[in-house]
Amino acid sequence: MRRPTIKDVAERAQVSLKTVSRVINNETSVMQGTRARVLHAISELGYEPDVTARNLRSGTPFVIGLVYDNPNAYHIIGVQNGVLAACRETGFGLQIHPCDATSPLLAEELIEFVKRSRLAGLVLTAPMSENEELVQALAARDVSLVRIIAATEDPDDGHPCVYVDDRDAAYEITEHLIQLGHTRIGFLWGGLAHKSSTERFAGYEQALQDYGITLDKHLVIPGDYTFDDGFRGARRLLALREPPTAIFGSNDEIAAGVLAAATSAGMNVPYDLSIAGFEDSPFSRQSWPPLTTAKQATEDIARQAARLLIAGIRQDAYDEHPIAMHNQGFAPQLVVRGSTAPMRRDRAQERQAERLPERTPDRDDGGG
Amino acid sequence: MRRPTIKDVAERAQVSLKTVSRVINNETSVMQGTRARVLHAISELGYEPDVTARNLRSGTPFVIGLVYDNPNAYHIIGVQNGVLAACRETGFGLQIHPCDATSPLLAEELIEFVKRSRLAGLVLTAPMSENEELVQALAARDVSLVRIIAATEDPDDGHPCVYVDDRDAAYEITEHLIQLGHTRIGFLWGGLAHKSSTERFAGYEQALQDYGITLDKHLVIPGDYTFDDGFRGARRLLALREPPTAIFGSNDEIAAGVLAAATSAGMNVPYDLSIAGFEDSPFSRQSWPPLTTAKQATEDIARQAARLLIAGIRQDAYDEHPIAMHNQGFAPQLVVRGSTAPMRRDRAQERQAERLPERTPDRDDGGG
Repeated sequence: MRRPTIKDVAERAQVSLKTVSRVINNETSVMQGTRARVLHAISELGYEPDVTARNLRSGTPFVIGLVYDNPNAYHIIGVQNGVLAACRETGFGLQIHPCDATSPLLAEELIEFVKRSRLAGLVLTAPMSENEELVQALAARDVSLVRIIAATEDPDDGHPCVYVDDRDAAYEITEHLIQLGHTRIGFLWGGLAHKSSTERFAGYEQALQDYGITLDKHLVIPGDYTFDDGFRGARRLLALREPPTAIFGSNDEIAAGVLAAATSAGMNVPYDLSIAGFEDSPFSRQSWPPLTTAKQATEDIARQAARLLIAGIRQDAYDEHPIAMHNQGFAPQLVVRGSTAPMRRDRAQERQAERLPERTPDRDDGGG
Repeated sequence: MRRPTIKDVAERAQVSLKTVSRVINNETSVMQGTRARVLHAISELGYEPDVTARNLRSGTPFVIGLVYDNPNAYHIIGVQNGVLAACRETGFGLQIHPCDATSPLLAEELIEFVKRSRLAGLVLTAPMSENEELVQALAARDVSLVRIIAATEDPDDGHPCVYVDDRDAAYEITEHLIQLGHTRIGFLWGGLAHKSSTERFAGYEQALQDYGITLDKHLVIPGDYTFDDGFRGARRLLALREPPTAIFGSNDEIAAGVLAAATSAGMNVPYDLSIAGFEDSPFSRQSWPPLTTAKQATEDIARQAARLLIAGIRQDAYDEHPIAMHNQGFAPQLVVRGSTAPMRRDRAQERQAERLPERTPDRDDGGG
């Protein structure tokens, strides 16, 4: 028996193809009676929607892999959703593969993963995507891949990528704090394995320099892209004899840690301390006050990366016309919310004059 | 040429098998020189670690699918990590498949997903796992599956599952609030499609009843498992003529919304309002004050579910001895943190006497 098509369903239910499609996609714009008729026709005919699989000429659909090593749940989910969106468009499947970026046998592990699961290609996120040796090793073994990286411009090195200009956005955040009157601006690093953290620091450094503010190295604290490091880093900064009046955390998780450290020390954010993050994760909207941050279109970035990978795979497999798909850049945008405010000069001057911190300095780095 | 084994590597590097394994697994307990020797041997021999694939007798490894429809990133990542842990133990691959639980053609979509990607089975999370019609439809088409569900006991209905006793944990949370002196305890529902939300309400209701407190229906607000619904629900409750002195949000996202609503209204949590959540997501430890909640071992629960599914698949495929794997129950545990405190009787009595709310009631339900 011929496999029933969406057209058969439309004919049986006496509706348009568009209406059947609306019901299948569960759109709300279909009247209840029509919807029931379509569902009835689908069930009578035994119709199975198979739009995506039909796009593929071969029998087995392609599956790609997403490789990540990131402590940030919101970030992973954003990337995953973007890659899944591109997969849905093209009928590709997605296998996920968390890994340890520091593993000495990572290249072998990923090649094994690709071979074993017969993957058509890999989406590499940072820091793996920024490990040149790894990328070379994979390419040498004919693994198709796309990289999501932090860079101010297209590296144009023969491997496809999408690149995010973290430096420019970090500059904007720092400039915003400077324009609010802050000159003592703390900076909490993200993980050094990620190029994004170097880029974000470079933006901070450049803005200070352009505004003639000397970088005080006591205000710069190393750490990872985690809440705990934000909390610990903020405690160190707030315990300084001359604490900063604003802190820029390299991502929203870090900024959330700063917020918890400040609030738990009885400080009123933003009046006693301005805080900015980076990424515009859901957390940045859900904290109180909500966080000033840089809106990074994580889902769009990941979708674009996966599209680039998939276009290459299809081109190889079907000899399709080369599609006009190029490496693409993204620029995160400053989003000002309640966690940043003009510096209170009175407070700063008071402290300067008295040379006495208002809070008892607490040099204990533990917590969280 | 014979494929090199881990034994070849050990011989070449003149170390034990255990040491090679330690290097492969990137454990820190290996001396730098030894580590370099092992890596050198691996590279010379072209050894590729293939521990997991060897567990499978057939050529193609099995892949299972994880099906979810949940707005909560932390929850998804927890489930995903648990399923991935079970996959790693057994060399299985994981494809992920977010879906729309309300889609009328969900069964067809999932059958298509299984067939197309040749999956060995599915891990179903709520609410799909609690949709009996869907489970029957999948089972009728020979789809192996395991369900993660909310239930006080094993449903013992022929389909494998792990079940989580949300009711008992919700009872404990409500009891904790009552023992702190609260009698006006608000309850914010999670999504009705999830059985967990009904179970959590049942626990709340039962505790009130056991302690002789009449349930005031004005204190119970419908909603979904989201921050926004927590924020809106709390605004409604706090605008009541007799607002609650404690609010139990059905999960941590909801409780986070309550915390933001209370803090943004100038309230001091927990002194002006006690707040409890459910799940022990990272957020519950990262907010200020940290949230009293019920610790749900999401990762363990998901790993156990995936183990159950995989054991069944291997049994079918290899005719393995039936393994002693049964449906298993989990009981979330009360975790008391800073967001709950004894009721301030003075405040409650004052209000009762004056019949005047301290804050201007705000009946605007918008926000977030």
